[in-house]
Amino acid sequence: MTGRRYVITLSCPDRTGIVARIASFLAGLGASITEAAYHADVEAGVFATRQVVDAASVPCDVEELRELFAPVAAELGGEHRISDTGTRKRAVLLVTRDQHCLHDLLGRVWTGELPVEITRVIGNHASLEPIVTAHGVPFHHVPFPAAGDRFREQGKVTAFEEIRKLVDADDPDAIVLARFMQILPAHLCEAWAGRAINIHHSFLPSFAGARPYHQAHRRGVKLIGATCHYATADLDAGPIIEQDVTRVDHGDTAADMVRRGRDIERLVLARGLRWHLEDRVLIQGNRTVVFH
Amino acid sequence: MTGRRYVITLSCPDRTGIVARIASFLAGLGASITEAAYHADVEAGVFATRQVVDAASVPCDVEELRELFAPVAAELGGEHRISDTGTRKRAVLLVTRDQHCLHDLLGRVWTGELPVEITRVIGNHASLEPIVTAHGVPFHHVPFPAAGDRFREQGKVTAFEEIRKLVDADDPDAIVLARFMQILPAHLCEAWAGRAINIHHSFLPSFAGARPYHQAHRRGVKLIGATCHYATADLDAGPIIEQDVTRVDHGDTAADMVRRGRDIERLVLARGLRWHLEDRVLIQGNRTVVFH
Amino acid sequence: MTGRRYVITLSCPDRTGIVARIASFLAGLGASITEAAYHADVEAGVFATRQVVDAASVPCDVEELRELFAPVAAELGGEHRISDTGTRKRAVLLVTRDQHCLHDLLGRVWTGELPVEITRVIGNHASLEPIVTAHGVPFHHVPFPAAGDRFREQGKVTAFEEIRKLVDADDPDAIVLARFMQILPAHLCEAWAGRAINIHHSFLPSFAGARPYHQAHRRGVKLIGATCHYATADLDAGPIIEQDVTRVDHGDTAADMVRRGRDIERLVLARGLRWHLEDRVLIQGNRTVVFH
Amino acid sequence: MTGRRYVITLSCPDRTGIVARIASFLAGLGASITEAAYHADVEAGVFATRQVVDAASVPCDVEELRELFAPVAAELGGEHRISDTGTRKRAVLLVTRDQHCLHDLLGRVWTGELPVEITRVIGNHASLEPIVTAHGVPFHHVPFPAAGDRFREQGKVTAFEEIRKLVDADDPDAIVLARFMQILPAHLCEAWAGRAINIHHSFLPSFAGARPYHQAHRRGVKLIGATCHYATADLDAGPIIEQDVTRVDHGDTAADMVRRGRDIERLVLARGLRWHLEDRVLIQGNRTVVFH
Repeated sequence: MTGRRYVITLSCPDRTGIVARIASFLAGLGASITEAAYHADVEAGVFATRQVVDAASVPCDVEELRELFAPVAAELGGEHRISDTGTRKRAVLLVTRDQHCLHDLLGRVWTGELPVEITRVIGNHASLEPIVTAHGVPFHHVPFPAAGDRFREQGKVTAFEEIRKLVDADDPDAIVLARFMQILPAHLCEAWAGRAINIHHSFLPSFAGARPYHQAHRRGVKLIGATCHYATADLDAGPIIEQDVTRVDHGDTAADMVRRGRDIERLVLARGLRWHLEDRVLIQGNRTVVFH
Repeated sequence: MTGRRYVITLSCPDRTGIVARIASFLAGLGASITEAAYHADVEAGVFATRQVVDAASVPCDVEELRELFAPVAAELGGEHRISDTGTRKRAVLLVTRDQHCLHDLLGRVWTGELPVEITRVIGNHASLEPIVTAHGVPFHHVPFPAAGDRFREQGKVTAFEEIRKLVDADDPDAIVLARFMQILPAHLCEAWAGRAINIHHSFLPSFAGARPYHQAHRRGVKLIGATCHYATADLDAGPIIEQDVTRVDHGDTAADMVRRGRDIERLVLARGLRWHLEDRVLIQGNRTVVFH
Repeated sequence: MTGRRYVITLSCPDRTGIVARIASFLAGLGASITEAAYHADVEAGVFATRQVVDAASVPCDVEELRELFAPVAAELGGEHRISDTGTRKRAVLLVTRDQHCLHDLLGRVWTGELPVEITRVIGNHASLEPIVTAHGVPFHHVPFPAAGDRFREQGKVTAFEEIRKLVDADDPDAIVLARFMQILPAHLCEAWAGRAINIHHSFLPSFAGARPYHQAHRRGVKLIGATCHYATADLDAGPIIEQDVTRVDHGDTAADMVRRGRDIERLVLARGLRWHLEDRVLIQGNRTVVFH
Repeated sequence: MTGRRYVITLSCPDRTGIVARIASFLAGLGASITEAAYHADVEAGVFATRQVVDAASVPCDVEELRELFAPVAAELGGEHRISDTGTRKRAVLLVTRDQHCLHDLLGRVWTGELPVEITRVIGNHASLEPIVTAHGVPFHHVPFPAAGDRFREQGKVTAFEEIRKLVDADDPDAIVLARFMQILPAHLCEAWAGRAINIHHSFLPSFAGARPYHQAHRRGVKLIGATCHYATADLDAGPIIEQDVTRVDHGDTAADMVRRGRDIERLVLARGLRWHLEDRVLIQGNRTVVFH
C-alpha cells in the first residue's frame, strides 16, 4: 500500500441501495477508491463493507471525513469506523515462556510488514525479556501465583489488575495473547471486546482446552492446525479470524506435532493480526467477515 | 444459488464514480444485489466488476435489462455482458483417450453441480464413446491422421474443419479441451477467444510443452500442478483461470506423478469451468480477474 | 507399479532385530524389494512394516511364500498378511442418494486407477441405479423404512440383514460407505472390522454427527474438511485413514460448503480406499499407520 | 528427538540384500533403531537409506562406529556418512538487506528448534548488523562494489575471497544464502558442494532469474512459491530440497506477492535447512532424496 489511505468499514442491516448510498457519497467527494469489498448475508439480513480511499483524493482530513460520513452511517444504521493509515496503530502483547509467536511478530514489526507499534510486552515469566528488549520494546514482568499457592485465586486477580492497568495506559488497537496460556477473566474479555486476539494451537472446534497436540496425537488425526480468534468469555469459542493446518503422519510424536504446529501458529496469528490492524475483520455475532 | 439471477459483468477504464454509477442504476430499478465484486487495477488503469441481481426484484426481463443498461455501459466504455441464470449454458467437450477429466465433468453435470448442458463430446479416438453415451450425451468421432501419414497436415486441417462445424452448430458458451492433446489452430483460438478452455497438466509456466510430468520428474520438483487457461494462438501462454498443486516426493516415479496429477487436473478444470460458466472470469490482457 | 508384486505387511511388538530378521529372510529368497517402509512407535512399543517384493524375483508363488514366512511371523508375534497384486481385490459400495463419491469411484475403477473390482453397489434408494449400471456394475436396491414407519426399527434390522447377505456373498476386501448415511449396526462393524470404510463429511473430531457443514457454517470456521476412517461401533470415532480440508470464507453459505466439501470428500475417500487396497494401512489401536 | 543418536546415511548402487546387510550389522551391535528409511530408484539403479540409532544402545562411540561400519560401506560401494547428534553442527549465513529469512532462522536457533550454532553472519550491507548482534551472533560486513564501479569485477573477486576465508575458518556444515542476492562463483559452489543452501523466491523452474514475483505478476499465475536448493554453478538449477506455494489473486500487486512470498520463503528455507542438518537429504545427481 503506497500513500495515505482512509479505511471505512460498516456493518448494518441489509437493504436495497446501501452500495449506491455509500458510492454516491464518496463520488460526491471526488474520492478515489483503491479497494472496495461488500458482503451481504441474506439469511442473517446483515450487510458489511470495507472501502479504502486515497487520502490525497478527498478535500478533508480524517476528522472532517468522519463528520461528513456520520449522517450517512446514521441513515444506514449499524456500526462503522474510519481509520487513517497515517496514524500508526498500537498493540500490547501478552506472553508466557513460548517465544515463537512473539519472535515472529517482533520480526514483522521490525521489517515494517506489520503496520503497528508494539508499545509493550507483558510476560508472566521473565524469560523472554532479553529477546524483547533486543528489539527495542519495553518488557514488563507480571508474575502469577504458582499452582500450589493457597492465595492463588487472589494472586491472579491482582496480577490481571496490574495487566489491565498496563494495557489500558497504552489504549492499544490490539491486545495480542501470543501464546499467553492464562485464561483472560470475563471482565477483561468484555472490556477489550473486538481487540483481544488469541492464538489457539488447534484447529478449533477440535481439541479445545489444554494440550491440543497431545489430544490430536491420541486421536490419530492426519492434519493439525491453529486458530486465531477474538477472545470472549466463552473460552475457545470466540469469532474465528483465521485458521490453517499442516499435514502430520503416524511417524510424528506429540512433540513433533508441537514443533510442526508452531509454524502454523506463527502464520495464522500474523495473518489474523495484520487483517485486524488493516480493518479487514468485521465481527457479526459469533462469526467474522474478513475482507482479504 | 437459489432463484433466477441476472449476472452483470463489466470491464472498463478505471475512473472515479464507476461504482456509484452502477449502484445508482441498480438502486433506481429497485434491484436486490445478492453478490457484488469490484477490482481496480490502479497500475493498468482498468476496472472490473461483477454484480448479481435477484431477477424477481427487477421489473423487467433480461432483454429489457440489457437495453436499460446499455447507455450506462456506453458511458463507462469497455466491455460488458448480462447473463440470465434461467437460460442454461452450453458446452462442447474435446477429448482424446484420457477419460479422467471427461468423466469428472460428466458427473458434475449429472448431479447438477455444473450449470451447463454438454451438447456433445468430440473425440479424435473412439474409445471414450461408451462412457459418454452412458451419460446420455452424443459422441462424435473425428479421426486425426496418424504420425507417419504423408498427408498428415492436410488431414489435420480437414479434421479441425469438421470439429469447427460441429462446435459452431451448437454455439456453445464453452469449448472445453478436456485433455484434448491436439494443438488448436490459430484461427480457431481466434474464433473461440474467451470461450476455449484448456487444462494443461503442469503448473505453468513450468514445463510447458510435451510430457510435463516427465519433465517435472527429471527436474526433481517437490510439487506438481495443473493449469486451467483460455486457449490462445501462443501455446500454453493464454490467460490463466486457475492453478493448483499437490506434493510429490523422491519415491514418486513419473508414472506416479501422472496419477497424482490427474486429481489436480480434474479439480482445476472443474473449478475453472464453473467460474467461467458463472461469469466470474474477466480477461484483462493476458491475465484474468476471477471473482470467487 | 509394473509387474506382479507380493505385498507383506506386519504389525508386532517392537524389539531389536526385526528389520534384520525380515531382511535376511527376503535376502535368503533372493527377493528384489521394490518398496519398504518401517515404523516403530517407541512409546506404544509397537512396530509396523510393509515390504513389496517383485514376484518374478522369488522362486515361489504366494501360497508358498505365505508358508515360508509363517515361522518368521510367528517368531515376531503380532499380525501379518501377504497379498498378491496378481489377484484382483473386490469391493462392495453402499450408497444412498448422493452420487459424487460413487461416480468418482466408478470412474477411477473404469480407468484402472483403483486396483479393484466393484462387485456390486447397494443403495437404500433406487435413484443411483442408472449411473451404476451404465458403468457395468450390478445395483441392488434395499429399501429402508421411512422416518414415520411404526415398524421402523424392525425394518432396519431386516434391511441390514439383506445387506449383510449380499455383501458377505462377495467376500469383499473393502465395504465402502460412499455417503451411505445410515448407521452401521455394531455387529456389522464387528464382522467387517478393518474392511468397512466410511467417508465423513467433516474434519473429525470437529462436527461429528449430523449436518456437519451446517455446524461448520454456524461456527464460522475458515476451513472445512472430510475424513476417511474405518467404521467402528463407536460412531465417527474409528481409526482415521486420511483427511483433507479446503478453504471457505464468509461469503460461503452452508449450501456452498456442501458443494465445496464434495470435492474433498471424493479425494479423501479415493485416496483412503486406494491405500487400503494397496495394503498401505495398518491399524494400531484407534490409530493408523499409513505407508505412502 | 530425545537422547543422543547416531545417524547413518548411505547412497549406493542398488542390488539385492543391502537392507539385510545393514540390518544384520546393526542387529549384531545390539543397536536400537529409532528411525529407518529406504529408497530404491529402480530406473536409475541407486539405493539410499538413513538409519537412526540410539547411541546408548551400542557399545561404542561414533569414531568406533565409523570404523566398524567402514568395511560394510566399502562392500556396498557409494557414499556414506555417520553423524553424532551429540556434536552440534555449525552454519554460516550470507545475507544482504532482506531480513525476514535471517530473523526467522535466528529465532529458530534461539528456541533450540534448529539444531545448529550460527557461527557468524556475513552481509554485503551493514544494515542487518543490529538484529544479528542482538541475538548474540557475530556479524561481518563484506562490502561489494557498486553497480557503476569500474573495478567491479575485481572487487567482487576480492569480496568473495574474503567471504571464503571467513566461511572456511568455521568449517561449517551449512553455508546458507538467506536471501544473499549475489551469484556465488563457480569455484565456491564447487568447494561448498552439498553444503551451500540457497532460497530462491519462486517456484522453480518457473521464473528463474531476477525479480521472480514481478515475472509471476506479469504472467498472472494463481499461486506463487519458493524453492530451497543446493547452490550449483548452474544458476537456479541445483538439486531441490523443498518447495511450497501460496495462493494469490488478481487483487495482489507485485508488492503484495513479495510480502506473501516472504512467509513461504521463511518456511521453505527453515524446513530445508533443518532436513539438511538432520542428515535427511541425500543428493542423487540433480535430484534429492528427502527422508522426512
